[in-house]
Amino acid sequence: MSTKLYKNPIPTVDAIIQRESEILLIKRKKDPFKDMLALPGGFVNEYEKVEEAIVREVREETTLEIKLVEILGVYSDPKRDPRKHILTVVFVGETVNKNAKAVAADDAAAISWLDLEFIDNHSFAFDHRKIINDYMKWRISHSTFWSSKN
Amino acid sequence: MSTKLYKNPIPTVDAIIQRESEILLIKRKKDPFKDMLALPGGFVNEYEKVEEAIVREVREETTLEIKLVEILGVYSDPKRDPRKHILTVVFVGETVNKNAKAVAADDAAAISWLDLEFIDNHSFAFDHRKIINDYMKWRISHSTFWSSKN
Repeated sequence: MSTKLYKNPIPTVDAIIQRESEILLIKRKKDPFKDMLALPGGFVNEYEKVEEAIVREVREETTLEIKLVEILGVYSDPKRDPRKHILTVVFVGETVNKNAKAVAADDAAAISWLDLEFIDNHSFAFDHRKIINDYMKWRISHSTFWSSKN
Repeated sequence: MSTKLYKNPIPTVDAIIQRESEILLIKRKKDPFKDMLALPGGFVNEYEKVEEAIVREVREETTLEIKLVEILGVYSDPKRDPRKHILTVVFVGETVNKNAKAVAADDAAAISWLDLEFIDNHSFAFDHRKIINDYMKWRISHSTFWSSKN
């Protein structure tokens, strides 16, 4: 059984937290992609559901409580993370308290709401630019996405 | 790094293959849930995308080629599989060739199209009954699902 475990990708979760025309982004404190913008997220622990993992990760990195809206997609291209083969489940969510202020913590060096109109002016960690592009399509179609889907 | 790998759930993929009011089900050849009905699916290999894994698993178990329509949901309740913590990405798909005949192979002892009206008359492996119930909601709403979402 131990050898089998090495042959599977490792699951993570990420969140698009939406507020009208803005989404919440963090500046990464650590490598890979240190100092670049990224969606909040992280590894799923054993015995933790993905829907619990994303709420916990967002709380740890931003201090915000979120509610989940939909699954945007599952991204699993083995080249999306330079460390190893990492699969991510991406949720669309919203803050529970619309007036709560995000505070950068844990793996986030800084945090900011960014208007989707300004996405082109930034570079993103991992495949998060593709994920944000897919989210912009999702706002119109409400369809789901994966790494090789255009 | 080796200890970290043991702390993550293991990813699998499953498919709802739809044909009008029917879906394709297999009878499991092996434990757990030997002889019970289940959705076709299996483990995601390292360096394989989830969208590739589900096409491969359906081909291996049914000989059918499928195209993917949407992601139905991601199910990761640690109690959904008696062996270990297994997370599954569930796709909705359709056969590429509408006249191709499914042939049971690999982990499938038998295979059959089942009308959704007859779902209540059967028992299912894992949490596949919940997944099929969610699919019936999806046919109306096109929303996405997870283990703790009703």
